[in-house]
Amino acid sequence: MTFQSEKWKKDFPILNQVVNDEPLVYLDNAATSQKPEVVLDALKTYYLTNNANVHRGVHTLAERATSQYENARETVRRFINARETAEVLFTRGTTTSLNWLAQSLEDTVIEPGDEIVISYMEHHSNIIPWQQLAKRKQAKLNYIELTEDGHLDMENARKQMTEKTKIVSLTHVSNVMGVVNPIRELADLAHSKNAVMVVDGAQAVPHMPVDVEALDADFYAFSGHKMLGPTGIGVLYGKRNWLERIEPIEFGGEMIDFVGLQDSTWKELPWKFEAGTPNISGAIGLAKAIDYLETIGMDAIMSHEQEVVKYLMPKLEKIEGLTIYGPKNLNDRTGVIAFNIEGIHPHDLATAMDMEGVAVRAGHHCTQPLMNYLSQPATARASFYLYNTFSDADKFVEALIATKEFFLNGLD
Amino acid sequence: MTFQSEKWKKDFPILNQVVNDEPLVYLDNAATSQKPEVVLDALKTYYLTNNANVHRGVHTLAERATSQYENARETVRRFINARETAEVLFTRGTTTSLNWLAQSLEDTVIEPGDEIVISYMEHHSNIIPWQQLAKRKQAKLNYIELTEDGHLDMENARKQMTEKTKIVSLTHVSNVMGVVNPIRELADLAHSKNAVMVVDGAQAVPHMPVDVEALDADFYAFSGHKMLGPTGIGVLYGKRNWLERIEPIEFGGEMIDFVGLQDSTWKELPWKFEAGTPNISGAIGLAKAIDYLETIGMDAIMSHEQEVVKYLMPKLEKIEGLTIYGPKNLNDRTGVIAFNIEGIHPHDLATAMDMEGVAVRAGHHCTQPLMNYLSQPATARASFYLYNTFSDADKFVEALIATKEFFLNGLD
Repeated sequence: MTFQSEKWKKDFPILNQVVNDEPLVYLDNAATSQKPEVVLDALKTYYLTNNANVHRGVHTLAERATSQYENARETVRRFINARETAEVLFTRGTTTSLNWLAQSLEDTVIEPGDEIVISYMEHHSNIIPWQQLAKRKQAKLNYIELTEDGHLDMENARKQMTEKTKIVSLTHVSNVMGVVNPIRELADLAHSKNAVMVVDGAQAVPHMPVDVEALDADFYAFSGHKMLGPTGIGVLYGKRNWLERIEPIEFGGEMIDFVGLQDSTWKELPWKFEAGTPNISGAIGLAKAIDYLETIGMDAIMSHEQEVVKYLMPKLEKIEGLTIYGPKNLNDRTGVIAFNIEGIHPHDLATAMDMEGVAVRAGHHCTQPLMNYLSQPATARASFYLYNTFSDADKFVEALIATKEFFLNGLD
Repeated sequence: MTFQSEKWKKDFPILNQVVNDEPLVYLDNAATSQKPEVVLDALKTYYLTNNANVHRGVHTLAERATSQYENARETVRRFINARETAEVLFTRGTTTSLNWLAQSLEDTVIEPGDEIVISYMEHHSNIIPWQQLAKRKQAKLNYIELTEDGHLDMENARKQMTEKTKIVSLTHVSNVMGVVNPIRELADLAHSKNAVMVVDGAQAVPHMPVDVEALDADFYAFSGHKMLGPTGIGVLYGKRNWLERIEPIEFGGEMIDFVGLQDSTWKELPWKFEAGTPNISGAIGLAKAIDYLETIGMDAIMSHEQEVVKYLMPKLEKIEGLTIYGPKNLNDRTGVIAFNIEGIHPHDLATAMDMEGVAVRAGHHCTQPLMNYLSQPATARASFYLYNTFSDADKFVEALIATKEFFLNGLD
């Protein structure tokens, strides 16, 4: 069966608009995705029928809200194949998930002289929390090198992980090069050194089937807004034994058992980590987004993105002066394409593309170490999702060519 | 002009429903407020027209989203009369705001032996973060006593604040007794000891005019969901000199200037504190909620709640065996009423009230130290807001009386 991106697109009314006199082609999905109307309706229905604070109330609305919120947790659990809902924590997003972890693991596993391993392709949110932890604890932060076409260098990965390595934190999919990392193999490596394996799944969960059990990740973080869900909601998955071992980072209502004047005790999992009123509607919206993704199927979504990329790449390669970063083997990547055109600054390129109705991003994409590694101050980036059609790909190429002509003529 | 609670109520369709065969009377506003349809429409409109990630994009949607998000910050600034938008940080809610502060102030102002002053009426979210900080730093956590009718004991406050006091963190309004604390006087006291003044405004900002400059608070925290806004969004106001002095707690995208392999530098205020994709729609929804509140007027809302309480109290006092906690002088309190009926457990009471369509809360209200102080394991709590009418107050009293009859007859 052919993937019906034209049909899915109709579920996203925002895409049916004109920008700068051109039909919008939204190719900034690695930054954030659009939302199908069913997700927005789920938010509104929640607020119009069941809204109340969760867990602490006995009245009808509070029970309904609690049940919807906890059902959302079960939806997430099933979606990533976690063993139990106790292993699914709702957070503000991937960034909060990773920051919580870095703070929690600081007291649990890191001593001065210990080592933390990340890679040159990490997003700032998977660099700076570990960097600051390393500074505070006089630990060492080591970076896994990349191969020439942007894969993790597995030989180097083996070298970087030593007996001193206590934490390995790697992205599942690069937000710049779209490269998919072999997480299971990396987790096995980390575990062979008794290190904890943390995965930044922000660019993976929206685009492919993810099974945290099969990956054997100890922790896995992702965001709702990149997978058709609302802003302000994300997930931190953790194996029960790890979540029991580490301390919560935020303290307050809902996460406590007893509060004395000078000390307190925590509730059982997962609530031990969820202090204060959670983003209830965010969790409910995320669950609805997952329902929608599952109706289409994550395998189908992944295949579609790869097909669009395979359709697109030969056309891009024909554009003189255009460089694409990341794997040549298109089976190793998702729908994220970072590129530059010689002689045109990526910001100018993105601005000009916007005049053609095509939304792409330009900059360091929160990966300054990767940019330095690639010797590029910045790149342009187009990132595709389930609602992007082959016709979007065509318009992207047309706009690129028009933009290039415009700048070259301007420079003549 | 009479306050038009009947009219405002129509803006909240959730209130127009039948629960357990009775028209809903929602009196759990201290836990969370309902949302007017205009706020829900603002969320949907944002997602259907402008949704994109903020700050890092040059394309049209990104520029629109950024402008809406930053306009929301300006709306908040104006609402609380902060000096500049740089002093307004968006967080997940009051709990996150206070936790960030406790962590940030730990490295900046607290040495072993220093003192932190809170009170017996604080919410857990304004207790445990300081408790844990005190434990980590061998500092002392001191509690200001209360007067017999639930005011802060100002004489005791003067005693608790010493030359060793570095942080004073107090609630503006008690979430149990509704008592309003004299924040300006307390801030002056704290400042006379060179302590930093932190205010938990979760129960104040939704219900009265709040001017952070006039209060001279150094930090002021509150939540969107208790003031007609969405879940998952809150605010931490801080004076510029303090925000410049403390370090961010979450690290990642958007909050950085330069990221090197082993160290990074931060952006200017307010972005230094906002790592990762923020709750963009949450901020926009909160701004719309503020617009709505301002249309009615915070003075008018405060007066209305006080009038409802003044109407209600004599009726409650007639119910034999009913105890109300907090100030006798009704001018000193907001629309939060905690109470118990002799011989009926508050949970049973709330459950029975729910059968009459009346939503009240029962429990420790995240204030276990206060419950111990009051020698009560739990209380019931009714909390009123702008859309609660005098007729709601009547139904509340009727349901209370019916519930009492039911339990007393049952016990016969």
